[in-house]
Amino acid sequence: MGNSINPIVWQDDRVLLIDQTRLPLEYETVKVNDYKAMATAIQTMIVRGAPAIGVSAAYGMYLGAREIEADDKSVFMERLQAIAKILSETRPTAVNLFWAIDLMVQTAAAATGTMAEIKALLLETAKKIHREDVETCQTIGDHGLAVLPQTPEKLTILTHCNAGALATAGYGTAVGVIRSAWRDDRLARVYADETRPRLQGSKLTTWECVQEGIPVTQICDNMAAHCMKEGRIDAVVVGADRIAANGDAANKIGTYSLAIAAKAHNIPFYVAAPLSTVDFSLNEGSQIPIEERNPKEVYQVGETRICPKGVDFYNPAFDVTPANLIAAIITEKGAVSPEQLIQLKS
Amino acid sequence: MGNSINPIVWQDDRVLLIDQTRLPLEYETVKVNDYKAMATAIQTMIVRGAPAIGVSAAYGMYLGAREIEADDKSVFMERLQAIAKILSETRPTAVNLFWAIDLMVQTAAAATGTMAEIKALLLETAKKIHREDVETCQTIGDHGLAVLPQTPEKLTILTHCNAGALATAGYGTAVGVIRSAWRDDRLARVYADETRPRLQGSKLTTWECVQEGIPVTQICDNMAAHCMKEGRIDAVVVGADRIAANGDAANKIGTYSLAIAAKAHNIPFYVAAPLSTVDFSLNEGSQIPIEERNPKEVYQVGETRICPKGVDFYNPAFDVTPANLIAAIITEKGAVSPEQLIQLKS
Repeated sequence: MGNSINPIVWQDDRVLLIDQTRLPLEYETVKVNDYKAMATAIQTMIVRGAPAIGVSAAYGMYLGAREIEADDKSVFMERLQAIAKILSETRPTAVNLFWAIDLMVQTAAAATGTMAEIKALLLETAKKIHREDVETCQTIGDHGLAVLPQTPEKLTILTHCNAGALATAGYGTAVGVIRSAWRDDRLARVYADETRPRLQGSKLTTWECVQEGIPVTQICDNMAAHCMKEGRIDAVVVGADRIAANGDAANKIGTYSLAIAAKAHNIPFYVAAPLSTVDFSLNEGSQIPIEERNPKEVYQVGETRICPKGVDFYNPAFDVTPANLIAAIITEKGAVSPEQLIQLKS
Repeated sequence: MGNSINPIVWQDDRVLLIDQTRLPLEYETVKVNDYKAMATAIQTMIVRGAPAIGVSAAYGMYLGAREIEADDKSVFMERLQAIAKILSETRPTAVNLFWAIDLMVQTAAAATGTMAEIKALLLETAKKIHREDVETCQTIGDHGLAVLPQTPEKLTILTHCNAGALATAGYGTAVGVIRSAWRDDRLARVYADETRPRLQGSKLTTWECVQEGIPVTQICDNMAAHCMKEGRIDAVVVGADRIAANGDAANKIGTYSLAIAAKAHNIPFYVAAPLSTVDFSLNEGSQIPIEERNPKEVYQVGETRICPKGVDFYNPAFDVTPANLIAAIITEKGAVSPEQLIQLKS
């Protein structure tokens, strides 16, 4: 229990990432030695999940920084900004990416000392972001457990996509809540939406549950409402990629559909995410940019093409769940109603 | 236009079925020479869709009848009932299956004349069911067109699964409405839900649209609510496998989820089906048996296994959309509100 799955490891002066595109059938790690490789890893979703992307980008910034050969601080900063730009352009929706990159840039800008000292500080900062993310997730898990319905004693929780250990530095956000419930004997079973098109639910969330011994039932996304109607689901807990100041939450495509169905069945719908996921500069969810990904994700599964030529595709990677469908946003500073979120702005 | 796709053909004293498990990448027909082969074809979904299952079962009854070697009518009927039982057990949800089998049994029971004459009458009856299904679909299409929203002039219609020519004797029910709208220049585009787990939307509905030159966008099931929110969808039209007397409608899993989302966005949600789909013996949808299919449909796509060992699965093939989410039920006798459905009982 706890943190047995480590998707991001700093070892031998480089990053090791679990290749999440190969799970669950193959468990392999990818060695990331430079910032360009990190940019590719984020874009191709070797690493994915908003908090994990943030941690990876922080290490990516350090990997880029250590390659900069400059004695002059302003030259160093100029090159670091260029690296920041490349890493920023890998994914558009997860705000943790920009948050971590900004933090690394601000740290470098504020630092004094030699170039070697600044680079060492950047590595320490990335490690701190990494370490704090695990602690944050554990705190989120416990705060989430506290707001889950009191009955039944053992809950069946539906989750979407993978907001698990794999999506963070470990433990997970939505799956963090699930882990805390499991630890305290409040969990009967997880229902995992498969999460088309990339199947992170089938491939990653089920895998995490199996690792922990948590009973898990996999369903197709379109079965969730039917399961709710049949009384199989007590609560829905999902992660987020960006949350606006009013509590509107962008998360993996299909989350919005789930939230509507949960509301129709009076099932509480929770969003679990670190505060670094909240973008207080955005008043509402309509301002969150939604990534559109390659149509191949929709028309091909494994090596199998599933539809004919001559068809158009639409492949939005995220959607926005409005605040009024969310029972609570679970952060490391506590679980709050969407309206109260603004009070957590530091 | 019209009826260029013929999933069921009576030719050379046998049935030819388009093998719908191989579309859209391969177009092949399967020759069905006896009732056992027809039972297998229905069960393995070589032929699928409630009306098409009904027509196929009717031919299956004839194929079975012609093999019966009996001079005595009561012996003949006994054997025919045994064949009826086998064909009835292929799929549990679509009522058209039972409707067609019953009609064939009643026809045989009421018939006078020689065994050869009774067998000939059964073939004529199957052909009549077949012929009438096409006419019924065309009428449904036109009645549906009449109740579609008047604005915008050219509609974008979302459909789920395949209630098309392939699901009927031709033309389709939900896709029949789409065909009629296309013929009268009232259609801008179809959005086709892929329809996990068997992907009938990706594989069959898109294929039918491409054959007709109808613009079609394929999406994953979990994107539909987001598309509605973005204003991409003007109406939802789906088929049905069984409709209770109160208008509750069983259809492919995921339909209920769509109906909830459509209601949340004030988008009209229509169910198109022949009256043979209405089971007036059931007061409400909770009485409709829901088929649960092999979990392999969920965990494997093509040759690709998409989740680890140790996971449980749930694979309900249908769900029930309550009448209060349905704007109109479109039948060959006109489009009516769910409450008015009972008036169409003959």
